[in-house]
Amino acid sequence: MLINNLDERKWKTLKSDYLIRRPWLTARRDTVELPNGTVNPEFYVLEYPDWVNVLAVTTDNKFVMIRQYRHGIGETRYELCAGVVDPGEEPLEAAQRELSEETGFGGGVWEKIMVISGNPSTTNNLTHCYLAKGVERISGQHLESTEDISVHLLTVDEVKHLLLNDEIKQALMLAPLWRYFAMKKLL
Amino acid sequence: MLINNLDERKWKTLKSDYLIRRPWLTARRDTVELPNGTVNPEFYVLEYPDWVNVLAVTTDNKFVMIRQYRHGIGETRYELCAGVVDPGEEPLEAAQRELSEETGFGGGVWEKIMVISGNPSTTNNLTHCYLAKGVERISGQHLESTEDISVHLLTVDEVKHLLLNDEIKQALMLAPLWRYFAMKKLL
Repeated sequence: MLINNLDERKWKTLKSDYLIRRPWLTARRDTVELPNGTVNPEFYVLEYPDWVNVLAVTTDNKFVMIRQYRHGIGETRYELCAGVVDPGEEPLEAAQRELSEETGFGGGVWEKIMVISGNPSTTNNLTHCYLAKGVERISGQHLESTEDISVHLLTVDEVKHLLLNDEIKQALMLAPLWRYFAMKKLL
Repeated sequence: MLINNLDERKWKTLKSDYLIRRPWLTARRDTVELPNGTVNPEFYVLEYPDWVNVLAVTTDNKFVMIRQYRHGIGETRYELCAGVVDPGEEPLEAAQRELSEETGFGGGVWEKIMVISGNPSTTNNLTHCYLAKGVERISGQHLESTEDISVHLLTVDEVKHLLLNDEIKQALMLAPLWRYFAMKKLL
């Protein structure tokens, strides 16, 4: 029997303060008490808005992928289109807006396939992952000056090659990609 | 033709300083220059040691899963065993130590299946994901006072249920789990 109690072992927050609150970094320090009575005076939570990403497949079965330099690990690799849910936006709207801005693709049939976390321990936000089937090029890209993104239409075999050779690094994108290949029995 | 140039579009770091350097939170602020000349004076990178996780399957084909409260999202869910690579440790040693400490399981045949990132943009570390086949219970758990972890041996069908119902949230664990189900054609 699988357990389904999200509140199991929940910690009590005794105190909270913010170390920094900037648009791209908000760090909170909590003093927490565990059910066993242990008090930890220094547990950090990074607060972010929710994120979205899109596994977009075109009408002729190509994957809409992007390449973008990622400063944390200092590398440029293939990725899914992704971004932030803006205030007042629904996750689906954000996903459709990001696909349009970053790649110029749109249309198709959209389905939310998972809601996941990059790190449930240290971050408070969730990432809504969409599958968009039958998208088409509708416009050009609309990038901000801090965005430097190229768009690539890859075949199923090319994406399979990237997955099998561990060439995609972002776990929030790998989860929906591996799920797609598992569900479609493409391996 | 797939592109394989990790240095494409690389940013130049003009200046770096640290906002905080604590054992569980190290935040660096970089001033960066993009290839298009745009200067961003405030790009944050969170520095962490490398992490490991283990998809461990017992001699009788049960998945060794744990349950642990995660304060970032405020929930307790099923997870793989995971942890930090200690200074001087190899990732494989860290993975075997964590499996032993958190679950009491060991032995078996180990294989590194992917090296991935929770967020290549904002974090500088990688997570080494192992598949351990044929593990057995060797001892009890050895937990620290801040760890409150229960061990659960799940069948393939139970893990499949968790995956299909979006009940596992940690992307660094979902990537190797979905890969396992994709490669073994278990769906």
